[in-house]
Amino acid sequence: MKSKAIEEIKVSAKSLHDFMMNIMLKAGVRRDVAFYVTDGLVQTSLRGVDSHGLRLFPHYLKGVKGGRINPDPKYVFKRTSASTGKLDADHTFGHAAGMEAVRKAIELAKEAGTGHVAVYNSSHFGAAAYYALEIAKHDMIGFSFTNTDALIKPHGGKEPFLGNNPIAFTVPCEDEEPLCLDMATSVVTFNKIRQLRDSGLEAPPGVGADRNGVETTDPHKITTLLPIGGYKGYGLSLMIEVLCSLLTGMPYGPNIPKMFEAPMSQHRMLGHFMIAVRIDCFQPVSAFKKRMSLLMNDLRSSPAIDKHNPVMVSGDPEKKKRSEREKAGIPLTKIEYEALIALAEEYGVPFP
Amino acid sequence: MKSKAIEEIKVSAKSLHDFMMNIMLKAGVRRDVAFYVTDGLVQTSLRGVDSHGLRLFPHYLKGVKGGRINPDPKYVFKRTSASTGKLDADHTFGHAAGMEAVRKAIELAKEAGTGHVAVYNSSHFGAAAYYALEIAKHDMIGFSFTNTDALIKPHGGKEPFLGNNPIAFTVPCEDEEPLCLDMATSVVTFNKIRQLRDSGLEAPPGVGADRNGVETTDPHKITTLLPIGGYKGYGLSLMIEVLCSLLTGMPYGPNIPKMFEAPMSQHRMLGHFMIAVRIDCFQPVSAFKKRMSLLMNDLRSSPAIDKHNPVMVSGDPEKKKRSEREKAGIPLTKIEYEALIALAEEYGVPFP
Repeated sequence: MKSKAIEEIKVSAKSLHDFMMNIMLKAGVRRDVAFYVTDGLVQTSLRGVDSHGLRLFPHYLKGVKGGRINPDPKYVFKRTSASTGKLDADHTFGHAAGMEAVRKAIELAKEAGTGHVAVYNSSHFGAAAYYALEIAKHDMIGFSFTNTDALIKPHGGKEPFLGNNPIAFTVPCEDEEPLCLDMATSVVTFNKIRQLRDSGLEAPPGVGADRNGVETTDPHKITTLLPIGGYKGYGLSLMIEVLCSLLTGMPYGPNIPKMFEAPMSQHRMLGHFMIAVRIDCFQPVSAFKKRMSLLMNDLRSSPAIDKHNPVMVSGDPEKKKRSEREKAGIPLTKIEYEALIALAEEYGVPFP
Repeated sequence: MKSKAIEEIKVSAKSLHDFMMNIMLKAGVRRDVAFYVTDGLVQTSLRGVDSHGLRLFPHYLKGVKGGRINPDPKYVFKRTSASTGKLDADHTFGHAAGMEAVRKAIELAKEAGTGHVAVYNSSHFGAAAYYALEIAKHDMIGFSFTNTDALIKPHGGKEPFLGNNPIAFTVPCEDEEPLCLDMATSVVTFNKIRQLRDSGLEAPPGVGADRNGVETTDPHKITTLLPIGGYKGYGLSLMIEVLCSLLTGMPYGPNIPKMFEAPMSQHRMLGHFMIAVRIDCFQPVSAFKKRMSLLMNDLRSSPAIDKHNPVMVSGDPEKKKRSEREKAGIPLTKIEYEALIALAEEYGVPFP
């Protein structure tokens, strides 16, 4: 009963945003940096992607305290050609670094048709969709990539090497929010495995392997995740590693300091890669957006296995969640609620 | 015995190239166009990707005869910004159109850091790797995409809608051929399903569904392919559709004339998308290539499940095959051999 009651705590996005901003400012985070972290986390929670939403807020604050994250960065951007540039993020929050890179990519694209920005000396940036969605607001197609620490095993290998590196892709369309694909290259996340352990359930086949690299459905034995489509997801993860680790000059695979296990004083040394592509360099924008909506609606009205569950396109579940949560507020789990209450006390900011 | 003897027919890449060039010229295909089709098919067969190699040659010639493929195209390239352009391929072979686009993308990248070319009014281009590998020869990262006719079903849907649209990605490295990922977004190809039907074997789970959209392992019941990672592969396929159908102005999904079923007089109306990214806009080329080889070798020497099967990186199986076939020649199946002999007679060109 108690757990249920707590699960029903819902807080409006606006209240959570204000609360988190106030804490960030008290923690000494510069206002513009604080804004992007807060906005990124709240927007992500609104879209129902709780794994990458405000759940991460307490962890990030530890990073500021420990010295992992620089709350007052000096960005250095170097344009290297008409359509490319590099951003030194000075070890600040990935959210702020990512949005700075997006701004630059959009500027480059306005001038040169496309913009590509490699971000180095960064930290965890939350959900990749946040950046690609910003690009789509400018009548551009957006791509956002990040490396992550070692989690998936190479095809035929035993041990985690590459991260389950995500790709986000957005396309503006008519009369609704952009199409948005945001996917990790593993079949499921490690969080999912932890949930299965807690609930005593078996994992589905094809999602994880044990310490010998052998597939198992026992979540307690799973030490490494499997990539989607075997060698295909492994290859996609490698592609993202090239963009985010090799082109940025950052560490790769097992050399990347781990998010939770590394000391909070250690910089993460993450890399991101952002691409903005102007639609009007290929098609008239309004005709393109109309056709894009037509394609999405053709897919949605294509025959479904279950009549009551129509076919969806990338980002539809998040759009639905967003409209629910904009009205009803963002639900907090017991753990999230307690962590926020503890922060409220620690920083002397009243919880809404 | 007979079948075995025929399976052992191997022909050198050079002889096949000359033979195919002569036939193309007799069929009235312009020399530069003929070269790219022949080279694309032979290189692909050399790399062991037989599904997209010279097996397709007789089919392409039917396309020339039927009017589907224009053997003497007038390309129209329009540069639309510093880093972007559009290529009207005038319904010629995808191989020639693709290589023309790659040349333009490389030119754009030399000037603007990156080059993006949308190709429209094209036809089947064979293996996506062929184009991305050409880009990698210029110290650039290469991407190549194409749409294909409807083959995979949307997540939750019953019927094929999007193609199993492939992505190819290449990265130059030190002392060996580039890293090369070339993958379709379905778990297996439809060719694989046909092979299983012929051999009376069951399909593995998770590769195909029947006409009601329900997964089945009976290859005779499979009418639609499943994307890798469920909604993830579906989303990737949609991403490629946006680049190749929406940005090019070409038909999408079920509106794309089908390769084998459509009349040979009908243009395919396919679209491709090529991207070239200059490495030196992000890192010094030689340091990048060294590090790239280090990453690849770290992966190869990471612990393998089976000691005798070391971990590979994208493109390793094709590199191995290539070095074998460069020595021993390209093996022909009975069907391929007979089809080539028939063409030799039809066009009056001696088979090597």
